[in-house]
Amino acid sequence: MNSFGRIFKISLFGESHGPQIGLTLDGVPAGIPLEVADFEYDINRRKPGSVGTTTRVEDDVPKIISGHFQGFTTGAPLTIIFENKNTQSKDYESFRATPRPGHADFVASKKFFGFEDYRGGGHFSGRLTLLLVAAGVIAKKILKNIDIQANVIEIGGEKNLEKGLQRAIDAHDSVGGIVECRVQNLPIGWGEPFFDSVESLIAHAVFSIPAIRGIEFGTGFKAASMFGSEHNDAILNKEGSTATNHAGGVVGGITNGNELVFRVAVKPTSSTPKFQQSINLKSNEIESFVVKGRHDLCIALRVPVVLEAVTAMVLADLSLISNASKWNH
Amino acid sequence: MNSFGRIFKISLFGESHGPQIGLTLDGVPAGIPLEVADFEYDINRRKPGSVGTTTRVEDDVPKIISGHFQGFTTGAPLTIIFENKNTQSKDYESFRATPRPGHADFVASKKFFGFEDYRGGGHFSGRLTLLLVAAGVIAKKILKNIDIQANVIEIGGEKNLEKGLQRAIDAHDSVGGIVECRVQNLPIGWGEPFFDSVESLIAHAVFSIPAIRGIEFGTGFKAASMFGSEHNDAILNKEGSTATNHAGGVVGGITNGNELVFRVAVKPTSSTPKFQQSINLKSNEIESFVVKGRHDLCIALRVPVVLEAVTAMVLADLSLISNASKWNH
Amino acid sequence: MNSFGRIFKISLFGESHGPQIGLTLDGVPAGIPLEVADFEYDINRRKPGSVGTTTRVEDDVPKIISGHFQGFTTGAPLTIIFENKNTQSKDYESFRATPRPGHADFVASKKFFGFEDYRGGGHFSGRLTLLLVAAGVIAKKILKNIDIQANVIEIGGEKNLEKGLQRAIDAHDSVGGIVECRVQNLPIGWGEPFFDSVESLIAHAVFSIPAIRGIEFGTGFKAASMFGSEHNDAILNKEGSTATNHAGGVVGGITNGNELVFRVAVKPTSSTPKFQQSINLKSNEIESFVVKGRHDLCIALRVPVVLEAVTAMVLADLSLISNASKWNH
Amino acid sequence: MNSFGRIFKISLFGESHGPQIGLTLDGVPAGIPLEVADFEYDINRRKPGSVGTTTRVEDDVPKIISGHFQGFTTGAPLTIIFENKNTQSKDYESFRATPRPGHADFVASKKFFGFEDYRGGGHFSGRLTLLLVAAGVIAKKILKNIDIQANVIEIGGEKNLEKGLQRAIDAHDSVGGIVECRVQNLPIGWGEPFFDSVESLIAHAVFSIPAIRGIEFGTGFKAASMFGSEHNDAILNKEGSTATNHAGGVVGGITNGNELVFRVAVKPTSSTPKFQQSINLKSNEIESFVVKGRHDLCIALRVPVVLEAVTAMVLADLSLISNASKWNH
Repeated sequence: MNSFGRIFKISLFGESHGPQIGLTLDGVPAGIPLEVADFEYDINRRKPGSVGTTTRVEDDVPKIISGHFQGFTTGAPLTIIFENKNTQSKDYESFRATPRPGHADFVASKKFFGFEDYRGGGHFSGRLTLLLVAAGVIAKKILKNIDIQANVIEIGGEKNLEKGLQRAIDAHDSVGGIVECRVQNLPIGWGEPFFDSVESLIAHAVFSIPAIRGIEFGTGFKAASMFGSEHNDAILNKEGSTATNHAGGVVGGITNGNELVFRVAVKPTSSTPKFQQSINLKSNEIESFVVKGRHDLCIALRVPVVLEAVTAMVLADLSLISNASKWNH
Repeated sequence: MNSFGRIFKISLFGESHGPQIGLTLDGVPAGIPLEVADFEYDINRRKPGSVGTTTRVEDDVPKIISGHFQGFTTGAPLTIIFENKNTQSKDYESFRATPRPGHADFVASKKFFGFEDYRGGGHFSGRLTLLLVAAGVIAKKILKNIDIQANVIEIGGEKNLEKGLQRAIDAHDSVGGIVECRVQNLPIGWGEPFFDSVESLIAHAVFSIPAIRGIEFGTGFKAASMFGSEHNDAILNKEGSTATNHAGGVVGGITNGNELVFRVAVKPTSSTPKFQQSINLKSNEIESFVVKGRHDLCIALRVPVVLEAVTAMVLADLSLISNASKWNH
Repeated sequence: MNSFGRIFKISLFGESHGPQIGLTLDGVPAGIPLEVADFEYDINRRKPGSVGTTTRVEDDVPKIISGHFQGFTTGAPLTIIFENKNTQSKDYESFRATPRPGHADFVASKKFFGFEDYRGGGHFSGRLTLLLVAAGVIAKKILKNIDIQANVIEIGGEKNLEKGLQRAIDAHDSVGGIVECRVQNLPIGWGEPFFDSVESLIAHAVFSIPAIRGIEFGTGFKAASMFGSEHNDAILNKEGSTATNHAGGVVGGITNGNELVFRVAVKPTSSTPKFQQSINLKSNEIESFVVKGRHDLCIALRVPVVLEAVTAMVLADLSLISNASKWNH
Repeated sequence: MNSFGRIFKISLFGESHGPQIGLTLDGVPAGIPLEVADFEYDINRRKPGSVGTTTRVEDDVPKIISGHFQGFTTGAPLTIIFENKNTQSKDYESFRATPRPGHADFVASKKFFGFEDYRGGGHFSGRLTLLLVAAGVIAKKILKNIDIQANVIEIGGEKNLEKGLQRAIDAHDSVGGIVECRVQNLPIGWGEPFFDSVESLIAHAVFSIPAIRGIEFGTGFKAASMFGSEHNDAILNKEGSTATNHAGGVVGGITNGNELVFRVAVKPTSSTPKFQQSINLKSNEIESFVVKGRHDLCIALRVPVVLEAVTAMVLADLSLISNASKWNH
């Protein structure tokens, strides 16, 4: 499935080294002011450039080709396209024979019977997270004054980010990290259990982001070692404010009006500068090699804005569904 | 949404203290041998009875009311119903005024404008996980020789389970735990990125289980502190066997033929025997109270069979979708 | 798929001669007053008893088993079950060998590899339309003062219904008819093109009703022989009232505020009292036989309340989706 | 909803006078040979040029921007884009004040609060049927040797098409028509009742085509005036061949292996050369005017290839779903 959402619905298309990548948003309400400039801030946040990120730089100027008229959304499907210009496909030819560890090369080839576009990871490339960011810009507009902020809080096990990153640079290796997302001003009552709990939907969306290996809400894995009397959040008033926030803002799969808090684990970039081993499918021998191409040392650094985006997508959908459920209230 | 799945699709209904709870499975292939006795083993595994579990015991005998004929599934929607007999609703009347910390009482009342069935947690009750177990029994049949096993691996932070549980009993408190699920014999190529990666679908289903606070695949959160050269799994042969399994059997959102491994964090049961505090919505004053009713001390103990069930549901759906995608292959 | 709808969503289950049939409604807003007595009027309208209808009579008393508490809908999935009591399965054993013309016997057996429940048409039985009627009762409540009325307007080609029916009785044959549905007080703007036009959704639902062979909106098939200047409905005022209503209340797939009008063609009941021919799959010879069992002579007579129900289902869903799409308006 | 289908799934985007229109197909199996030239035949069949069609001519050269690599489909979402070059937007400015009878102008403005792209009918334009044709090309490839043929069988009530068309030309008016679709070589057993009967899905898709006002399967509306003994199709052999085909190839919502036959009613083009009346929303007075712009006199002439396309879309999806349902068979 290349689509996600029930009312506010995103579909993606494109490959790392195809001519264009794009997204279509269905269910965008009519009348939202929208300009190309509105995408700039978040798209720039995703761009590489800082220490630890790839040297592939694209313009990433969105071209809105439908669902937009005279500065506003129209209510029709909204499609945005980005050009792929800075592609270097020759880097990838060798992976056909020797699939890269940690990449989708091997499984994609099996799943699609060898017909997959393998250049630059094809449809599995991190480049497609640009589309999520674009969707997030519009989702955030639907959410109005709800504030979503994600930040890297740990690199390579270090809370001091620079230190964690430097350790990887010194080791000539890629490195993982942890990103935390916090959402303020959520109303009470969003989330659609049994199966569409807030955690279910956010986790579903989050695990679409390449390199994510875990997610935890509120106190998360630490809750597994706690007593109930420690973990429970005493309810303080009619607005549902709690003394602590171990629940991370979600109880019974539904927002409780407190801050939504969750963290994701980002694995180290698979394309490490170190030598690695894999089978050569032609010679049937193990090869030792270094993955060429341009890659991020610490992909976690580019995750925050993507994490905000998918969170906004889920919450925008839940906000519209919440409207739908009102009857005489 | 009370439904989940694309071809193999489950819908749930019922409340903790209603007359019956049930599930409907759509997309079950015709011709699967199925008897009431087939449910017994897994349903018994979910039943309370051991140390640390509730005293509410139900027969839990499934009644198949459709989609089943002469000992086989028919291909029509398969509905199974369970009676609720052992209900003690009077325990729950007081929670209307003073919503229990960690429970859905408060958010459900806000979301449903006070019309929710609040008895025993209503539609939010852990009782509904029985329905997941029933669905799992059929999903496992679809999966044939794929083997799914979940186990509690930690209680209250202790790898020695009895010790962890005893610590909670001694403290007169509820306690959390960690459950691990392992799946053997998976083919390569299941999973439907971009949005329906294996991790996305499993996480979506898993967070429908009450009390789950986190999920991690393979090395999970530990991957965030690793270097790429440590984390990558070297591919050893044409079958895709890897030297290590940090990926936990999923790469690029698609099964790679190695063991699928993931862990979930289960919070301590919200209904601890300890005193707790919450607002009394009538008097607008903070009350201190103990939650009565019959509850599990360590709900994690009952999670393994439920975790297996939702995993089987997801994988059964992916297996049918995988069939659909074949064209001339 | 046994389900239909996006926000207000129905799932069906059951077979003609199983113990029970039932439906689950997802997305029913909380707080709608609902009693068992509310179903009586429409369920009675569907019941046989008048000239030209079957002698199988069931109590058809709905049992609400979830989503309902203290006289109101709760917002949780609402499941209703009906008992099958008056079943005579022995009538149907012979159809295994000799599939009845016009019935699903042959195709069901092929589709489900012989595992289908063939008794009384199984999951293909007209009995399941009772579930649609029940869903319609709740859908009509969601729609409040929108008025939906369906009537038989033609039997056997005769506008004089009694005459058309008598002609069939005299001929000892079953007979078809035309049913018209009219909806008053619809707001402007319901319908979700491109693919979910009002006509698309109504037609989708309508063709789930057994025996429907055609549908036309407004002037319908007659429009195909008209000039544009005749067919166009001049718009008279700001409210969108039109001088004529050839469009039948839908333009561009969206309600235009005028009366919604459509007609459906109902084929003659396949189980005619006349001799028919079919292949005996065992002997491989053509047999001539009369279908026993209890059947309607003119199934069109029982269609109006079912047609109203599926129309209400579609419109209730569109009304909730319409709520969802509002943003600052 | 801009999307349709369950496994083979189409999403559309674009407006009549936007820069581009496009479609994304999800669920296309990998390995289908596909070239730009493959679209030419069907796209040319849709093009205007003959008597009775518009003078707006576009190149309509498809640009495949994803899901396609080295001459084959890859299994990833397949997106195709068409340029809009020959647009004359100034024709449409006046319709803002005076909505055209029979067009979506009025309802679109109400539904989208005045934010719709009204140029050339915007997202409601018949131009978008080009996207359906493109989807149909790929769907037909999935269906291999299944043969789908649609033809105009009546114009303005005349079975002699030239005569019917000439009558409209002489009357300086637009005119309606009837299009029939026939499908050969269908296997037995496609269709997914209860709600996804073959008729339901085809009707759903068909009513997305602008100007369709009715659909009937097999004998259709005429069945409503027949006796059962006349209408029933005697089954002749184990392959399910029938003596007659009043059912039009579908029984119980499922293909029965005979020819699938259905007809649709196409209304006369709303933009007739004749004077029409509508309210001027600014002056609040009735105006009499002729719709300028370039329009088809008999839009039915361009419907056949579009009808084939949506039929192919539905059948391709059902074929993939049919694969999914097999388990040990």
